[in-house]
Amino acid sequence: MIVSSPEYLNPPLGTVPAGSLLLALDLAGTAVFAVSGAAVGVKYRLDVFGVCVLAVVAGVGGGLIRDVLIGAVPPAALAGWRYVTVALAAGLITFWGHPGIERLRTPILVFDAAGLGLFAVSGTEKALGFGLHPVVAALLGMLTGIGGGMLRDLLVSEIPTVLRSELYALAALAGAAVVVAGHWLPLPAAPVALTGAALCFAMRIAALRRGWSLPRATGAPPEG
Amino acid sequence: MIVSSPEYLNPPLGTVPAGSLLLALDLAGTAVFAVSGAAVGVKYRLDVFGVCVLAVVAGVGGGLIRDVLIGAVPPAALAGWRYVTVALAAGLITFWGHPGIERLRTPILVFDAAGLGLFAVSGTEKALGFGLHPVVAALLGMLTGIGGGMLRDLLVSEIPTVLRSELYALAALAGAAVVVAGHWLPLPAAPVALTGAALCFAMRIAALRRGWSLPRATGAPPEG
Amino acid sequence: MIVSSPEYLNPPLGTVPAGSLLLALDLAGTAVFAVSGAAVGVKYRLDVFGVCVLAVVAGVGGGLIRDVLIGAVPPAALAGWRYVTVALAAGLITFWGHPGIERLRTPILVFDAAGLGLFAVSGTEKALGFGLHPVVAALLGMLTGIGGGMLRDLLVSEIPTVLRSELYALAALAGAAVVVAGHWLPLPAAPVALTGAALCFAMRIAALRRGWSLPRATGAPPEG
Repeated sequence: MIVSSPEYLNPPLGTVPAGSLLLALDLAGTAVFAVSGAAVGVKYRLDVFGVCVLAVVAGVGGGLIRDVLIGAVPPAALAGWRYVTVALAAGLITFWGHPGIERLRTPILVFDAAGLGLFAVSGTEKALGFGLHPVVAALLGMLTGIGGGMLRDLLVSEIPTVLRSELYALAALAGAAVVVAGHWLPLPAAPVALTGAALCFAMRIAALRRGWSLPRATGAPPEG
Repeated sequence: MIVSSPEYLNPPLGTVPAGSLLLALDLAGTAVFAVSGAAVGVKYRLDVFGVCVLAVVAGVGGGLIRDVLIGAVPPAALAGWRYVTVALAAGLITFWGHPGIERLRTPILVFDAAGLGLFAVSGTEKALGFGLHPVVAALLGMLTGIGGGMLRDLLVSEIPTVLRSELYALAALAGAAVVVAGHWLPLPAAPVALTGAALCFAMRIAALRRGWSLPRATGAPPEG
Repeated sequence: MIVSSPEYLNPPLGTVPAGSLLLALDLAGTAVFAVSGAAVGVKYRLDVFGVCVLAVVAGVGGGLIRDVLIGAVPPAALAGWRYVTVALAAGLITFWGHPGIERLRTPILVFDAAGLGLFAVSGTEKALGFGLHPVVAALLGMLTGIGGGMLRDLLVSEIPTVLRSELYALAALAGAAVVVAGHWLPLPAAPVALTGAALCFAMRIAALRRGWSLPRATGAPPEG
């Protein structure tokens, strides 16, 4: 380690709310999202660099957008080597080992649901900590959870799946709403965060098992 | 209202240049742009969440990009609940009522032209207020007007219509240029802003009625 | 020149590391990248405005993304009229003169390689100057070189060529890595920067001449 600026020795409060368990969970969420990005890159037959870009974008993109919008720059994901390194490693492992990754589809979906809950909750807390209005903080928390996947899909010219598939964003929004409600009452932060993450996780898993989805528009088919 | 930080009780000068009439116009522009975003979502048969995302992106995206680029974070559209709430409401109304929205096509085009003029002018003023060079301020004013629609089109994997259709961006640029010229002479801000917005509105309406457009490249057809 | 704020009379150190030769090289890189953007716009038969948007996005987009991420706002490319004016001029020249531009294909590829090296090196230096971790600084330097082209391709709904084509990003990363290594040892900045830019340039030219590319994923073809 060369530079020893405090920013990345002590990440800002709200990102990783203290404790190495939470840092580990945050990095695990980054890794799982990065695998989802790399898997899309493999599907589109990108080269190893393209697969790694999609891994990093999917792994840290949601937090990057949130931090740029609230003015927390440089973003937490760039304030240190941990997040990008974890995402790059997940990308390389997926690139070289993707037949094995394919067999891990179910555990990856479960980890992805856990990462969604964790990111939605920590993103909401960070936005509240920066003084944003609760309605906006909940939307930014949701965006922290879904933004990486949206950027991933944009980079391969697909309409983001979160805009038209199962109950994914709503689960993130529910977790974020729990944090906002707890902040308003006010209740102690840690149990509220756990409840929010658990609610998001449970909704997402239930939606996967039962095929829940939101109503779709019944408009005319696209002309293009 | 829970938090009472001054940022969203007193939005920064330049965004809404004082007076509830201007705030109302700004919110009306957001609503009309949000309807255009939601209508694209309906066309692509997104679910209700996707339609709302496109509404918010189209309604506040141009101002978000401008504010992030000039360092005015958190952006005006996120500093308070008004803008996102208006955009979400416009998205939901469009989702549930889109056959009715379709019959409103002409008034929506007129409001859209008004929103374009308003956003181009207020975006230019804000950029000048942050000390940017007049050439750059005019471009950022134009971007405030057209950015939301560009993000909307990117999210559904379309080439932004503003890059290849009728005289839309040039109208925004003309309105922005009036503000820059008035700032340079200098002339009083309010009548200059009105003149710029009116010029943009008139150019856009004339372009719609007469089918004006810019010259296109005569190059080889796309290979892809 | 109307406003005389010091920001764009004295661009921040690290962007243009002193001296009009380096400013000239930076502007030359912007112009060449802008030509690549305008050429894509011509290929897709955009109108003159769309071609200019692609020129500006390709010319200054990489630096914009970098500056927004590290918190250097307003970005160097917007702090003054030079960068946008050069990019717009390159866009207009390409629009009106594109058959002639086509004949210049080889010199443009050479200049593009030079621009890539220059942007990768100056982007890395700027990120280091803002206190970012060396691993992150190298990635941001690479992003400065490739970001404009990625945005250009996104705007025409193409998967960015840098994600799947010849050795382009890796050349930028190699140049960035030289700067990081020189900063770590530490060695004097100027010769290190020259070495990094030259390495990037040489790798890119060699890749073009010999058809080098990175391994591609061998996964299933895309279903979409």
